[in-house]
Amino acid sequence: MGLLSPVRAGSAVEAATGDTAFIQAMLDAEAALARVVAPAGAAEAVAGAARAELYDVRDLALRARSGGNPVIPLVADLTAAVARRDAEAASYVHRGATSQDIVDTATMLVAARALPPIVADLERTAAELARLAAAHRDTPMPGRTLTQHAVPTTFGLKAAGWRALALDARDRLAALRPPAQLGGAAGTLAAFDGGVPLLGRFAEETGLAEPGLPWHTLRTPVADLGTALAFAVGALGKMAADVLVLSRTEIGEVAEGAGGGSSAMPHKSNPVRATLMAAAARQAPGLAATLLGSLAAEDERPGGAWHAEWQPLRELLRLAGGAARDAAELASGLRVFPDRMAANLGLTDGLIVSERLIAALVPGLGRARAKEVLAEAAREEAAREGAGLAEALSGVLPAERLRELMDPTTYVGAAPALTMRALARDG
Amino acid sequence: MGLLSPVRAGSAVEAATGDTAFIQAMLDAEAALARVVAPAGAAEAVAGAARAELYDVRDLALRARSGGNPVIPLVADLTAAVARRDAEAASYVHRGATSQDIVDTATMLVAARALPPIVADLERTAAELARLAAAHRDTPMPGRTLTQHAVPTTFGLKAAGWRALALDARDRLAALRPPAQLGGAAGTLAAFDGGVPLLGRFAEETGLAEPGLPWHTLRTPVADLGTALAFAVGALGKMAADVLVLSRTEIGEVAEGAGGGSSAMPHKSNPVRATLMAAAARQAPGLAATLLGSLAAEDERPGGAWHAEWQPLRELLRLAGGAARDAAELASGLRVFPDRMAANLGLTDGLIVSERLIAALVPGLGRARAKEVLAEAAREEAAREGAGLAEALSGVLPAERLRELMDPTTYVGAAPALTMRALARDG
Amino acid sequence: MGLLSPVRAGSAVEAATGDTAFIQAMLDAEAALARVVAPAGAAEAVAGAARAELYDVRDLALRARSGGNPVIPLVADLTAAVARRDAEAASYVHRGATSQDIVDTATMLVAARALPPIVADLERTAAELARLAAAHRDTPMPGRTLTQHAVPTTFGLKAAGWRALALDARDRLAALRPPAQLGGAAGTLAAFDGGVPLLGRFAEETGLAEPGLPWHTLRTPVADLGTALAFAVGALGKMAADVLVLSRTEIGEVAEGAGGGSSAMPHKSNPVRATLMAAAARQAPGLAATLLGSLAAEDERPGGAWHAEWQPLRELLRLAGGAARDAAELASGLRVFPDRMAANLGLTDGLIVSERLIAALVPGLGRARAKEVLAEAAREEAAREGAGLAEALSGVLPAERLRELMDPTTYVGAAPALTMRALARDG
Amino acid sequence: MGLLSPVRAGSAVEAATGDTAFIQAMLDAEAALARVVAPAGAAEAVAGAARAELYDVRDLALRARSGGNPVIPLVADLTAAVARRDAEAASYVHRGATSQDIVDTATMLVAARALPPIVADLERTAAELARLAAAHRDTPMPGRTLTQHAVPTTFGLKAAGWRALALDARDRLAALRPPAQLGGAAGTLAAFDGGVPLLGRFAEETGLAEPGLPWHTLRTPVADLGTALAFAVGALGKMAADVLVLSRTEIGEVAEGAGGGSSAMPHKSNPVRATLMAAAARQAPGLAATLLGSLAAEDERPGGAWHAEWQPLRELLRLAGGAARDAAELASGLRVFPDRMAANLGLTDGLIVSERLIAALVPGLGRARAKEVLAEAAREEAAREGAGLAEALSGVLPAERLRELMDPTTYVGAAPALTMRALARDG
Repeated sequence: MGLLSPVRAGSAVEAATGDTAFIQAMLDAEAALARVVAPAGAAEAVAGAARAELYDVRDLALRARSGGNPVIPLVADLTAAVARRDAEAASYVHRGATSQDIVDTATMLVAARALPPIVADLERTAAELARLAAAHRDTPMPGRTLTQHAVPTTFGLKAAGWRALALDARDRLAALRPPAQLGGAAGTLAAFDGGVPLLGRFAEETGLAEPGLPWHTLRTPVADLGTALAFAVGALGKMAADVLVLSRTEIGEVAEGAGGGSSAMPHKSNPVRATLMAAAARQAPGLAATLLGSLAAEDERPGGAWHAEWQPLRELLRLAGGAARDAAELASGLRVFPDRMAANLGLTDGLIVSERLIAALVPGLGRARAKEVLAEAAREEAAREGAGLAEALSGVLPAERLRELMDPTTYVGAAPALTMRALARDG
Repeated sequence: MGLLSPVRAGSAVEAATGDTAFIQAMLDAEAALARVVAPAGAAEAVAGAARAELYDVRDLALRARSGGNPVIPLVADLTAAVARRDAEAASYVHRGATSQDIVDTATMLVAARALPPIVADLERTAAELARLAAAHRDTPMPGRTLTQHAVPTTFGLKAAGWRALALDARDRLAALRPPAQLGGAAGTLAAFDGGVPLLGRFAEETGLAEPGLPWHTLRTPVADLGTALAFAVGALGKMAADVLVLSRTEIGEVAEGAGGGSSAMPHKSNPVRATLMAAAARQAPGLAATLLGSLAAEDERPGGAWHAEWQPLRELLRLAGGAARDAAELASGLRVFPDRMAANLGLTDGLIVSERLIAALVPGLGRARAKEVLAEAAREEAAREGAGLAEALSGVLPAERLRELMDPTTYVGAAPALTMRALARDG
Repeated sequence: MGLLSPVRAGSAVEAATGDTAFIQAMLDAEAALARVVAPAGAAEAVAGAARAELYDVRDLALRARSGGNPVIPLVADLTAAVARRDAEAASYVHRGATSQDIVDTATMLVAARALPPIVADLERTAAELARLAAAHRDTPMPGRTLTQHAVPTTFGLKAAGWRALALDARDRLAALRPPAQLGGAAGTLAAFDGGVPLLGRFAEETGLAEPGLPWHTLRTPVADLGTALAFAVGALGKMAADVLVLSRTEIGEVAEGAGGGSSAMPHKSNPVRATLMAAAARQAPGLAATLLGSLAAEDERPGGAWHAEWQPLRELLRLAGGAARDAAELASGLRVFPDRMAANLGLTDGLIVSERLIAALVPGLGRARAKEVLAEAAREEAAREGAGLAEALSGVLPAERLRELMDPTTYVGAAPALTMRALARDG
Repeated sequence: MGLLSPVRAGSAVEAATGDTAFIQAMLDAEAALARVVAPAGAAEAVAGAARAELYDVRDLALRARSGGNPVIPLVADLTAAVARRDAEAASYVHRGATSQDIVDTATMLVAARALPPIVADLERTAAELARLAAAHRDTPMPGRTLTQHAVPTTFGLKAAGWRALALDARDRLAALRPPAQLGGAAGTLAAFDGGVPLLGRFAEETGLAEPGLPWHTLRTPVADLGTALAFAVGALGKMAADVLVLSRTEIGEVAEGAGGGSSAMPHKSNPVRATLMAAAARQAPGLAATLLGSLAAEDERPGGAWHAEWQPLRELLRLAGGAARDAAELASGLRVFPDRMAANLGLTDGLIVSERLIAALVPGLGRARAKEVLAEAAREEAAREGAGLAEALSGVLPAERLRELMDPTTYVGAAPALTMRALARDG
């Protein structure tokens, strides 16, 4: 029920990936098959019985144990349900198919239904981030490398980078074309009348893409889904990682719109959305690894590799769906504090522009001496003694020039231009 | 509901790890806390309200989103429920604790409740395998390396090896002592009266082990659980891998007691238990990796690493519970076919004992020539031409001696003795 | 030196990914940078010193420890080497850049150099498999599901499936466009004159693609490489898994052209290429998982996530390069034994076409009774008793019709047509 | 040469795990075997030739490709080298053994040699951390949860927690008893005279533990090593994660003794040791996952699972060795800044002790109103407006009492006592 997965609780993707949704997708696959292999009347009878609410999911799950997959009991129940309507039609249920045709097609149907809300949330995220990037195109903030202030950047560039990743994720997910699966017992279509053209006809009935071959053990579609979903979760993990840093008490440059509370500490406003996104980003790689491992599937149906895909793929859909929803919420509500950014820029008393200072000192002092001067000032600064960088350099550069050089807000380089370049990409 | 995880559907561990079981464990943690911090009457009132059936799990899951964990809404509901019984008592609910105290303690309670059935199934598996190993101590079969017949071994030794792994898994799981968690907001016990001794008192009330320190970000207990569970699943995966090989149509040396059927192919009897165990063994490593990754948890509660543990740890418990149940069923029902083993031993027409033949030929021919003779015979054998190994060697060794040497059933080395040695280990 | 990685020892990719190759690529990046930021003469001086053989790799590796990356000592040594030629030119070395600009550009150069031999080997593999698929378009063999004979298929379709995966891998790798990296200290290009257009100019000088933004912590290029490489290794793992099964002593349907030997057992001809490919397929997912995990990189350069990419990405290149080389060798030398396939098709005495038999029996007996008859025959067959399927059905179907129906070679369905369809795809 | 792995470059473990070290270990295994199976003189001849410097590692690596492992060419070369000394002795080389006996024994020898320096560095780390913990037992600092100030803790408790993890890692590694491997072609000892007692005799000659059974496909020793090493790397990753946070420019509570520099920014002092440790912690889980996956190894020697262990296990040894060395350096040089901790404690103007304030307000205001008062003050505080918490509460609590309550340094709970408890554990 999602108790241990708040990232996805109540989301559209959660609903689209539940056991009932899988049962419905399997029934949809059976109904599509009937439209291909049965007379119209029989197909209609199958379609009439292909409604998940008619079946007991838990009972199916338990009966799935003996054969190792849920299609065997589902076909039995579906056949019985159809027979109650139309005895003749019942003989067409599942005709020519194998369990994997139905499970794989259902999985792709579930994926095809879960992807649009994920893509939509990624686009919503990107749109909100575009807004933030444009608004803060020129807002200076400390650039940080290996946790230390490096040189200034802008919040606009940071938001533009998050957006670029969200769009990369969107592009990868939107490019997926989950295919239908049809092959029969060993992928030769032997039990069907109709041969190769069946692939296209069945695909059309399901609304899924037509496969080049039955792919019972050619698992490109699953690996592609797995890696694209894990990429999406990881890409959003970057935004989460930054928000977690920037909303630290000492940094305070951003805050979630509605932070999570604490029962004991009323002052706390936790970056909960970012936390859940970060948690998703830690879980996705291991799941994708399992799917990549299942590419090495022996025979026409493997003893383990196929069954190992089911839960990880579903969990990846849920993590991506949850993370994308949280990302959209996070982006839309994110509060940005330029004042804190400005204050933080001043923390190193000018050392954050040491790169520029060196460049200015080199003509007069030579590179080696210039570096020494700065390094010495940095040591004093760290020791919180000495007269500070400005004084140390006061004999070397004119006061006005020095003041200009030491203003971090004027050393953001091409950050605004890079931001605009990034925003030119279609969202 | 387990639809996509037949390995665990209906198992004891599934029931012990469901959302309701987690809610009950959280309530058990709150009740134990009340026994430590509240007067007896208040503690009783808390205990009286600490029954999962009083709460709406799905509602809690949805409300968990805002703060990122289910304890915040649960404490609200529990407090209200206690207040309805005893307004004074309500003020003791969750007193001094932090959400993580409750989630972690609950997780360890769930683990502590799920482990005994896993251990029991591993011991049942080991006992069945001991029976098989003893019964087939002297049953020769082909030893196979890199998929090819190497030299003979015995089925007893193979079963004894599976048993050794089951016991290794049992030992690692049985050695775990999941600890209670108590630390308060940042692990200092600051909001409690009582200090360090509280760790022991709370642990005693929960029935869990006493921790050395609050372990909010010292995640040894979770990593230990994760690796021990993944080991168990992997160890059973060895038995599954062998059963999958040995029950191949062409090999046929073992069969599952009740193989899974197929709707389309009535002759099929699939190794379903082994398949589900193998599928579990493919999923466990990725989940354990996530838990190992969460060791690197910053601060007194991390932004992501903790939340990332919940689902993978639960899934590992379920995979281990399911795989152990299937292993016990598989071991108890496994059918062994010594005749097929014997027939397969003859497939290479004596080459399976080439190692012994060389040893016998070396005194007369020298090592180099001996190898040549065998290699030539092997080439002919592979080409299914020539007069066969026996004839090729007929001029080199006396017929009687050759017959003895070429009998694979007498070249099992120390396999029976190793089997007995292994069976001497306590099950 | 590759001792523990025979899959890649001596391969083109191994040479292209060694420490010396990385040093050369870093030097190439520095030389390209000089061409962008320095006068022509100075750039020439830098290029003249940018030859890996002038530097001591081990010494650089040791000195890399203090700053955590090899660029810092390399820039020192390069600057000194340039200064010995042209003191003025030395001041342009690394100007404006940050270590990550050089490491990332070098990594992409290494990837760009390693990918073509991988792609070439995948295409060579596909060409060999096309040959096999065409030659065996109509060669029947048992289709196997969950290790058991299911219905017949053809070796052509199997080889066509392997080829489809090799081409999927080729397509994913060939589509990669590794970008240059340039951003300066925090990705703002602040220390450069030239701004945004520098991205294109630097990319052009390196021969790499132009990035949309500096991607110090927007790791799409690394994740894309990692997942495409892991996909390739996994895709080849399918062929390996099948060859390992089919070359089993009991099955014997294929054999590697030059199997690996054994010191003790002269008869052994091990499927070594397939073994090494399978081993690669087991290692790649964990490495890809690490790269996917590094997407969540905080700040403008992260404390750990970036450094964690270096070895796994290199290892993935090597595994893919090695596996592709082995796949090409395997495919070109694979020996196929149609006689063994035919013999194996007969092993179940007709049960392998039970699907067809049922279809034939249903009109006369009804579905339920038809299944019973077959299941009963299968039980007898498994028990190696009874008169066999043919006799069991002799009263139900005319002898001639029964003989036709029980011929597995005529029940390969659309396998030949699917093979031809698959071969129509561009190799 | 370690260019891409600064964490281990130049370390003792790097030297102990190189290709030459593996060759030497294989030769040691062969020499030990000779002492068991050959006359004393012959064994001496083998031992005389069992020196790695006599062999060409690269040549062996290349020749390892055909058979898939380096033992086959090594045995050839060793046999030739022995023959040059003593023709008779040469016939005893590798007698009765299989390649895997040698590779596995060598791997365990390498591990047994690499573990002591890792354990020593963990103990050195623990000792340094004990010193820090004792020295800062009472040094207050902000406790942080989900990146936000929660309640105070002490640096002593934090260091004690790091130490606890280092000791957990030490305990797990020190408990390992890597076993020798001996089984012959299929693990039955068939080609040896001597049977079961050989296991003990060979183990004694190697200095490794005696295995219960040949463990060619019972991979407990490898899985145990893998998980213990990954645990160690992850455990040290916690210290790294904290150091990375605490040394942030805005936080500045600790600094590495000798931070890494930057060529462009002379002020930077990067937490390089922590960065490399964090990078190691990101790589270890994926490698451990591969080893756990290899537990499911079919037959008496698997086609892939065994070969897949070699590189990941070596890499784990190296990461653990490197991380432990860096941890010891980090701990010994870590600079701690209590003043910055004190300053940071004041950042929230008293909100960091809101938990205590509520407890004090409840008797007068009731819990609900108390929380409201604090939450309101927190909102104003966050908005940087209003008169501050002290004034807000001035009417509610006496000034003196309020001053006491709002002093964060007196709200560290049992942190000092927990520190002392933790330090009582043997280092």
